[in-house]
Amino acid sequence: MKLLDIYAKMKGDLDAIEGQLARSVTSDHALLTDTSTHLLKAGGKRIRPVFVLLSGKFGTYELSVLERVAVPLELIHMASLVHDDVIDNAETRRGQLTVKSKWDNRIAMYTGDYIYGKALAIVTELENPQIHQILSGAMVQMCIGEMEQIRDFFNTKQSVRNYLLRIRRKTAILLAISCQLGAIASGADRKTANALYRFGYNVGMAFQIRDDLLDLLGTEKQIGKPPGSDIRQGNITLPVLLALRESANAEELQAEIDNIQSSNGAGETKRALNIIRKSAGIAIADKLATRYIAKAIEALAGLPNIPAKKNLTDIAHFVGKRNY
Amino acid sequence: MKLLDIYAKMKGDLDAIEGQLARSVTSDHALLTDTSTHLLKAGGKRIRPVFVLLSGKFGTYELSVLERVAVPLELIHMASLVHDDVIDNAETRRGQLTVKSKWDNRIAMYTGDYIYGKALAIVTELENPQIHQILSGAMVQMCIGEMEQIRDFFNTKQSVRNYLLRIRRKTAILLAISCQLGAIASGADRKTANALYRFGYNVGMAFQIRDDLLDLLGTEKQIGKPPGSDIRQGNITLPVLLALRESANAEELQAEIDNIQSSNGAGETKRALNIIRKSAGIAIADKLATRYIAKAIEALAGLPNIPAKKNLTDIAHFVGKRNY
Repeated sequence: MKLLDIYAKMKGDLDAIEGQLARSVTSDHALLTDTSTHLLKAGGKRIRPVFVLLSGKFGTYELSVLERVAVPLELIHMASLVHDDVIDNAETRRGQLTVKSKWDNRIAMYTGDYIYGKALAIVTELENPQIHQILSGAMVQMCIGEMEQIRDFFNTKQSVRNYLLRIRRKTAILLAISCQLGAIASGADRKTANALYRFGYNVGMAFQIRDDLLDLLGTEKQIGKPPGSDIRQGNITLPVLLALRESANAEELQAEIDNIQSSNGAGETKRALNIIRKSAGIAIADKLATRYIAKAIEALAGLPNIPAKKNLTDIAHFVGKRNY
Repeated sequence: MKLLDIYAKMKGDLDAIEGQLARSVTSDHALLTDTSTHLLKAGGKRIRPVFVLLSGKFGTYELSVLERVAVPLELIHMASLVHDDVIDNAETRRGQLTVKSKWDNRIAMYTGDYIYGKALAIVTELENPQIHQILSGAMVQMCIGEMEQIRDFFNTKQSVRNYLLRIRRKTAILLAISCQLGAIASGADRKTANALYRFGYNVGMAFQIRDDLLDLLGTEKQIGKPPGSDIRQGNITLPVLLALRESANAEELQAEIDNIQSSNGAGETKRALNIIRKSAGIAIADKLATRYIAKAIEALAGLPNIPAKKNLTDIAHFVGKRNY
């Protein structure tokens, strides 16, 4: 099934979640409502709510319960984006002005804090402490991942393992628990919840590797921001690390990255991008993403063959081929 | 009883909480451990843990339970301070370099996020959803309070009611729920928890008014930062609002504040401070703080006459006279 068809089938429930998202950030403070609504309207694929709902099909599917997991997960994702944009000094995301650029850094910081708080307030309406534990644990891991990203800025000597640990924390864990919590909230058994966790984790790893590839290979129109943004801000991703090892022009690439670093974000990334694009790093990263997708699909093997399983498989394949 | 004697009597349990605080922010990420430990070592009166423990005496006092409330509350307070310092561009706090000044704004932001996450991870070890709900609700209110502070920067036309609502969210709610959660975690009944909430709330209001007075009246040595910091960053506090209404020199004060605003933090606050210090605003604010303390003590009236009640009363009196 195509991705659009999967979304179309889930439209009613996704619309309900969209409504909850909008209501959840409406407060008696007008500016916070504005900034949060601006963030919400910037859109996104709502992949975390989709994972929650599909995982909920493996237990007793109840929208009123699942939305109390799906909405907080999407809010936590949004809050992390608004704080990321402060760190990355990003002017646009998905082709829209960021909160930090439309308002300012301070407002972006508190908007993120507020959305984190709202996320927690909603999930605590479900009186299941295990869900609260999993969610707060994931938030801690995400913060560590963000700090690791700052620590590793412009560190071209970091290992591939280091990169993988970082994207695990930054991206994969939240997708993993989206599946896990969907299963737990619908009362699925532990084995099912764990299998779905592994599915989400491996899709998340593939997703971030693909995202990092897109930043190097995509056009500004495709990715909603100028290509090479990662390297400009010092985020050394997998294809770059590999190019620094594999490319015949590794020394030139290192010199270009040094230039970018010393120019404080004003540097030209064109030559660095050219070297990376021609290097073997692209194909190796691409292959690794494909391997994570295979692992994700393997994780579903023991689960019953309900339509949701087919949908998750299709989404995994889509993430594997992702070039939007 | 003097404040020091109260602390001395609680030393064993407060030391245990201090140890938990230190362990709670130790992660496998060295920089986050460093920044968080720096924050912890900057000290503070640990008034939130003290309120939790004393309130716990009204039920079944069990340290292993109460510390899972006390530690998160202190961590949330710390996280809000580190984010505040980013907003306020503060170089020092309690005479120590702030995280944003010792490291940078980005690191301060993620340190705050990380500590918020840790706080939640600890409190969810207590499997009482009501506690999680109260805590996350308070975090949302605190964020709204912080945003209101930004919105109200240099707004000399704001009402006293506006100021009171803001400090309620910014300060009083967290002290209120420190008492309430101490009572709930120790299994005290609802009436007791509510009375203690009102106690903490009123002490919190008095505390913040006193804090705002100190920023105008204290010396740099007393308050650990240059006096007039609030007005320099645009935070218009109660005595200033009152001086703008009551003082014969109100127009001159308004002109001084306009100067401070247009100088972007480099302005001289001396003349403004002189006008405020001579105005009736000081005495009126002082009187209001005293009234909140009286209300706090009234809130305890129906509770049993255990030593903790006397301790809370003494702490309230101390906050009322606070000039440290």
